[in-house]
Amino acid sequence: VTEQQYVIGVDLGGTHARVGVLTPGGSQVAVAEQALPEKRTPRTAVEVTSALIKKLMQGNHLTAILGIGAGVTGPVIPSQGTMISPHTDPPWQFVPYSAPLAEEFAVPVVLENDADAAALGEYWQGAGRGVERLYVVTVGTGIGTAYIVNGEIFRGRGDWHPEGGHQIIDPASGSTCYCKETGCWEALASGDGFTAQCRKRAVEEPVWLTRLGLTAAEQLTSSLVVQAARKGDRVAHELVEKEAYYLGVGLLNIISFFVPDKIVLSGGLMKHFDLFEPGIRSVINRHEVLVPASEVIIEPDSLDYHAGVYGAAYALLRSLGIA
Amino acid sequence: VTEQQYVIGVDLGGTHARVGVLTPGGSQVAVAEQALPEKRTPRTAVEVTSALIKKLMQGNHLTAILGIGAGVTGPVIPSQGTMISPHTDPPWQFVPYSAPLAEEFAVPVVLENDADAAALGEYWQGAGRGVERLYVVTVGTGIGTAYIVNGEIFRGRGDWHPEGGHQIIDPASGSTCYCKETGCWEALASGDGFTAQCRKRAVEEPVWLTRLGLTAAEQLTSSLVVQAARKGDRVAHELVEKEAYYLGVGLLNIISFFVPDKIVLSGGLMKHFDLFEPGIRSVINRHEVLVPASEVIIEPDSLDYHAGVYGAAYALLRSLGIA
Repeated sequence: VTEQQYVIGVDLGGTHARVGVLTPGGSQVAVAEQALPEKRTPRTAVEVTSALIKKLMQGNHLTAILGIGAGVTGPVIPSQGTMISPHTDPPWQFVPYSAPLAEEFAVPVVLENDADAAALGEYWQGAGRGVERLYVVTVGTGIGTAYIVNGEIFRGRGDWHPEGGHQIIDPASGSTCYCKETGCWEALASGDGFTAQCRKRAVEEPVWLTRLGLTAAEQLTSSLVVQAARKGDRVAHELVEKEAYYLGVGLLNIISFFVPDKIVLSGGLMKHFDLFEPGIRSVINRHEVLVPASEVIIEPDSLDYHAGVYGAAYALLRSLGIA
Repeated sequence: VTEQQYVIGVDLGGTHARVGVLTPGGSQVAVAEQALPEKRTPRTAVEVTSALIKKLMQGNHLTAILGIGAGVTGPVIPSQGTMISPHTDPPWQFVPYSAPLAEEFAVPVVLENDADAAALGEYWQGAGRGVERLYVVTVGTGIGTAYIVNGEIFRGRGDWHPEGGHQIIDPASGSTCYCKETGCWEALASGDGFTAQCRKRAVEEPVWLTRLGLTAAEQLTSSLVVQAARKGDRVAHELVEKEAYYLGVGLLNIISFFVPDKIVLSGGLMKHFDLFEPGIRSVINRHEVLVPASEVIIEPDSLDYHAGVYGAAYALLRSLGIA
């Protein structure tokens, strides 16, 4: 039998599930995705994952897989294969995920937090390939962080996933986050935080809104502001600079605490990394005394929304001693 | 020959050198210390260390030692045994430390940053004994941080020692630090930072100064303010609460980034930990959503200024595979 053995990578976010079939060498053979239903039960995550895996196996004539790796939104207990999602999915509280899938497919299943999985993906096949100390920051709806050291996920007590997105960087600014703190990084600098700052400015300066051809602050999106900044709009430029400043402060703190070799930035807003980079760099390069901050490489991600699928598959391969 | 083999631990600070003789089991047999001369050459550190070791060996009739472990102020390059002290000791720039001592005493020498060494000491024989994930914060003239994971020092790229004391926690407050940032933790919450805040308040509210029986803000020390707070002085109490708040914010960020099992607080100001504890706890316990912040144990150190000597000796023992 010379049949190639394949591995399954699962990325289960707050709204979508994405499943990929990969070779142990890191080639993606096929991918399938599906929106999660609005109404969720404790079984939804497993059911959606199972259905997508079966669909991919049938569609690609696979009769056997090596195993399943999954990155799931919210805190998880990796050692138990259990999900805990206090915010995104209240029904998913201490819900077994790995065990039922392991039983159904009769293969090993590995469960990780989705930020950790995406960071592993960038380490394995993306912008952080082979980097010894790789810090990954996802600037999306919120801010997720993950640290990969020699290909291993950096964990806290009881294997808790650290949440650097909730570091407090400016208690005098920003709205109060669901983490109960004011001025945490996520509240100030996430994609949603940036949009909120832009809309606040639009309310304060309605003439700017008119200049952009809009009639209500709610019409403003981060993309529109980024475009306007690229065209030289002064207010948009100021907002981009402020965002870059907050990103820079949070990243400088990461450098002070970890001194990584490289930081990879992912998430929607970081598709415009070039626009934010000078402002980020000016904060970081100013600090040059105690750690070599300006030497830390900062780059956008390269796998985009496929990072989670790659990284989940890699977590499984590592657990099998194959990668 | 049944002669017990001894190990040397060196703590070389900004102003003092302290050397101890210890057993591999962690008993301190003898200790000697000496102030560093005002005028320093690149040879001073090695000369003072050597003199203290010889004095201890003679005084305790030791003819042989297992090796020398040293914790030295400022950044060091552990793999090369080289000191780099941009702030505390400008003459000590890329100065070899381990090599000349290894030659003179014909034993292995290990060099670490002093905050890392002190943290190792607390892990080996102090308040962090055997803790899997131990974070140590020294609140003294500045704020030093160190993370010990399973008895190993957590390092950054090129083995740089991370400097969590320079995390930015409130850019709208505090003076500009030598790290070039405004509102870093050290500037706001170190012993010196606390004293500065107290003196500022004394200038703003001279009647308070009079009430304390003082005539000039410069007479105020952190000890006086702590004593006044214990006696119920309202202004002193407010200043203590503010300090506790800043300590709490910085510690909460450490919890978000690391989720350690235990945080040990050392340094002069932390001899009054009980006074600051309620304020620190109220900041940390408020944040209870994404990481189990309130479960992280926070305690004062137990080795005091001996921690560095213990930890340096332990670093040497580990390098020999004995501890």
